[in-house]
Amino acid sequence: MAWTTTESAGDGFIERPFAFDAPTSGSWIPGVYRAPENGGGADRLVLLGHGGTTDKHAPYIVEVARQLAQRGIASMAIDGPGHGERATAGAAPGLEWLARVWEDGGGTNGVISDWGEALDFIEAEFGARTTGWWGLSMGTMMGLPVSASDERIQVALLGLMGVGGPNSDDLERLAPQLACPVRFLVQWDDEIVPRATALELFGLLGSTKKTLHANPGIHVAVPGFEVAASVEYLDHHLR
Amino acid sequence: MAWTTTESAGDGFIERPFAFDAPTSGSWIPGVYRAPENGGGADRLVLLGHGGTTDKHAPYIVEVARQLAQRGIASMAIDGPGHGERATAGAAPGLEWLARVWEDGGGTNGVISDWGEALDFIEAEFGARTTGWWGLSMGTMMGLPVSASDERIQVALLGLMGVGGPNSDDLERLAPQLACPVRFLVQWDDEIVPRATALELFGLLGSTKKTLHANPGIHVAVPGFEVAASVEYLDHHLR
Repeated sequence: MAWTTTESAGDGFIERPFAFDAPTSGSWIPGVYRAPENGGGADRLVLLGHGGTTDKHAPYIVEVARQLAQRGIASMAIDGPGHGERATAGAAPGLEWLARVWEDGGGTNGVISDWGEALDFIEAEFGARTTGWWGLSMGTMMGLPVSASDERIQVALLGLMGVGGPNSDDLERLAPQLACPVRFLVQWDDEIVPRATALELFGLLGSTKKTLHANPGIHVAVPGFEVAASVEYLDHHLR
Repeated sequence: MAWTTTESAGDGFIERPFAFDAPTSGSWIPGVYRAPENGGGADRLVLLGHGGTTDKHAPYIVEVARQLAQRGIASMAIDGPGHGERATAGAAPGLEWLARVWEDGGGTNGVISDWGEALDFIEAEFGARTTGWWGLSMGTMMGLPVSASDERIQVALLGLMGVGGPNSDDLERLAPQLACPVRFLVQWDDEIVPRATALELFGLLGSTKKTLHANPGIHVAVPGFEVAASVEYLDHHLR
């Protein structure tokens, strides 16, 4: 596990790519660590889980990293199974494809260990810090299991996911084990995740402090003010 | 229509009671106007609609008035039909009682004119100001119709109400006419307003900018942070 290239300056943050071979899944996991531009003194960290068919460099992931950095919070993102630099040729994005790459990547347990080992690496480098999760859609397929099973996650921003999809059984099983404060985003007119399944998943979350925020619009149309508020939410709970 | 007693200092605000005979319903309407303690310079106003079986002096109404005053925002509250100083002897609070006093007070149209005339009085005294609504449960039974029909209301905080109750037909009819930004609160385990009916009412709201916030707990257990956030929301949208 190592830093792979030299750091580069982003929009308000410094980006350092890394990669490692995950012991559990055997997969090669590429990631990026983003630190506030004004130095490595960030004493808080957020794990950024991208959505399906996107990756660790998706514009909205970069935007959340930027807003976190503005508040002095570092972030880490890795590519999910079959996504970004882990993509294989000939992919035809869709639910069947997502189920296949998810299983090829070791399924939910593989995802949990990928993120846990990436966090180990960052903590070995910079020390343990107050840590949160931000991830929607596939970012919740990954983030709900990670947040429910890794005690280092102290607050989670989840959403755009329901009881359904490739790891539906795992989500149903692990949701009641989630204990940290969570904000859960729903798009009222979500054409990919039926509203009723998202409401059902929110209902299953074990956290006593959980709040659902729903706005009109399709899956990808999360309002900018809600994204900004989600960063403020993590900032507040990571203090 | 007149001020009824001398002003008194509250917790961060100055309270001035008033009362008038409503031309439409013929009812005698008692109200209170609360201005920030540091003078009458408040250039924004929020109408506070209390919940069923409470009144314009309910502790949570006073608390919202206090938080508004801290932000330099004035507020006005009147007693709803059959509530507070408008209560009649021998009331046995319940849905049947609520339906009766609601109708005795002129129904939804009576409530709309009561609030409109009270706002006329305040505007005659202090001039027209940017105005919002805050009201849950019966505060939404009153506030949704008022906000949907009185163009002076520019933002609304509603919730704890669904398609149901004494003015269900009016809520269904008027919800699509609501056009201002609205935040709608839902209590996930509401034992008085079934969750599904509240979600249905939110879905009917015509506002393009509408956000639902749901938290665990029973009807009266709205978290303090959500109340504080609701005041911040009105503050933001009344600027």
